[in-house]
Amino acid sequence: MARLAGVSRATVSYVLNNTSAVRISEPTRRRVREAARELGYVPHAAARSLRAGHSRMVLMPAPAIPVGPLYSRFLSELQWALGRLDYTVVQYGTVGLQGDEAARAWAELRPVGVLVPGAELGPQGVGVLKRSGARAVVTLGPGRVEGAHALLMDHGTVGQSAAAHLYAQGRRRIGVVVPEEPGLEVYSRPRLAGARQALRGTDAVVTELPLAYTEEAAAQLASQWRESGLDAVFAYNDEYAMLLMRALQDEGVRVPEDVAVIGADDLMLGRLLRPRLSTVHIDLPSGRDLAELVDRAVRNPGGEPEVHKVLGASVIRRESS
Amino acid sequence: MARLAGVSRATVSYVLNNTSAVRISEPTRRRVREAARELGYVPHAAARSLRAGHSRMVLMPAPAIPVGPLYSRFLSELQWALGRLDYTVVQYGTVGLQGDEAARAWAELRPVGVLVPGAELGPQGVGVLKRSGARAVVTLGPGRVEGAHALLMDHGTVGQSAAAHLYAQGRRRIGVVVPEEPGLEVYSRPRLAGARQALRGTDAVVTELPLAYTEEAAAQLASQWRESGLDAVFAYNDEYAMLLMRALQDEGVRVPEDVAVIGADDLMLGRLLRPRLSTVHIDLPSGRDLAELVDRAVRNPGGEPEVHKVLGASVIRRESS
Repeated sequence: MARLAGVSRATVSYVLNNTSAVRISEPTRRRVREAARELGYVPHAAARSLRAGHSRMVLMPAPAIPVGPLYSRFLSELQWALGRLDYTVVQYGTVGLQGDEAARAWAELRPVGVLVPGAELGPQGVGVLKRSGARAVVTLGPGRVEGAHALLMDHGTVGQSAAAHLYAQGRRRIGVVVPEEPGLEVYSRPRLAGARQALRGTDAVVTELPLAYTEEAAAQLASQWRESGLDAVFAYNDEYAMLLMRALQDEGVRVPEDVAVIGADDLMLGRLLRPRLSTVHIDLPSGRDLAELVDRAVRNPGGEPEVHKVLGASVIRRESS
Repeated sequence: MARLAGVSRATVSYVLNNTSAVRISEPTRRRVREAARELGYVPHAAARSLRAGHSRMVLMPAPAIPVGPLYSRFLSELQWALGRLDYTVVQYGTVGLQGDEAARAWAELRPVGVLVPGAELGPQGVGVLKRSGARAVVTLGPGRVEGAHALLMDHGTVGQSAAAHLYAQGRRRIGVVVPEEPGLEVYSRPRLAGARQALRGTDAVVTELPLAYTEEAAAQLASQWRESGLDAVFAYNDEYAMLLMRALQDEGVRVPEDVAVIGADDLMLGRLLRPRLSTVHIDLPSGRDLAELVDRAVRNPGGEPEVHKVLGASVIRRESS
């Protein structure tokens, strides 16, 4: 390969291992890479990271629950932005592993950065990752974890926005759907708390409504609606809102006359319902900003953990509220 | 660690590196692993795979398009099953990389197995992966790729089932929705071809209906419906069916009296529509079977590539057709 590129073997090695300690001109690097490609050479990421002392791998646990289009778009943008900064994004399945157990499994891959959604990771897990060489440990969730950078996603603001909107429409007996499906508590609990907080000190009453994502459960809830006296509901998200609205309409409860309904996530399906569904539009952080945070942390691993509040929420009022 | 476990240092090394060449009893292995855990030891997957000559890593590209709950469930089951067979499943983002370029990037991680959904990989890519040590290269898609195991997912059967059902209901002018969103051709083209094939030699006519996933595009299509004379539509999937059914109803076209509608995927939302949406239920392969195929190929890398047809399709008739 050195012969084909017209350079020394040492230069080939420096270029293919991305050694930054040695100055090599960009044309030379390009010549070596072209020769490598011509010869069908595939570098060994593991060997390279052993030599370099750290990898360019950023680990992102694959979400265990089905994700919506909003989150999918965020992940794609993030992968794209990290790729532009020359990182390799690897998603890691956490099926059957939790908390610090999961952190140990991630650490085995010796990533230079780890992004952890939800609230799975504790300070111990952060320690394991850092000792194994991770320079950027970033949590995306409701709270801070010691030693890690935090993108605070406070779903309380989603509940707050929804409840404040229903109150402003003159509703006073407000139900808040809490899905019974496991894994959603990390979102549903703060949303309920946010709704309560928004209405504290007013004459409105908040009622928690557990609901499984089945037609039977929704029909059961709808059949007791009139006795409940509820005149509004924040239905957790657009999909639960569709489920509940259908059951209420089948029961003869009118939307929005008898009960105002609002969802969250601003999915297309909400616009296709009749009446059109009001919703809370959620703004996720930009993948580019997050990629830059990772890069900053990799370059300056000794820096203070950064904390950013990143979740935005705004009500889109349509016909159902 | 050897002292804590009461064994020799060589034994510790054998156990932690999963060396199978040396016979070590299960209780001893357990004692070493417990000692390792107590001391906070995290093995280095890269170093281990360099020593072992191959890793236990199975690479699965993260889907670039948003995936539905059906596919999410399949992925979780697959991860679980591979985990039970002691593999580590890593999802790999392919944003910006295609075909054999992507294969080179995957090869850098030196996986022992690679699963490739869709139709992205060519024989060259398979060659790159095999030369880099991958023993199990499995494609999940419409066709075979030389040198790779194939789980054939023939989406033609989905279109076939839908069209045969509409024909049996007495419909003769049948539209087939083809989404304009990029990335879906690999499913939509075979579905259209399957519908055509099912009706070949009959008196029915199939019309291709390009449709973007927007309210405007659906309204536009619905406004020309009466002139088109179509009396049935296979709407690609349940979400496009919901979009088109809403536009048709807003236009005063009655479902199913004027036009029969059928989707695919059997999503919950289809049951929540009025009329309830008919759909094609799709059976994906079991994650367990796929995990076992990977394991067979890893143990016997010289074996003939296996080919399995794995996609099942059955019509669930509800009120819309």
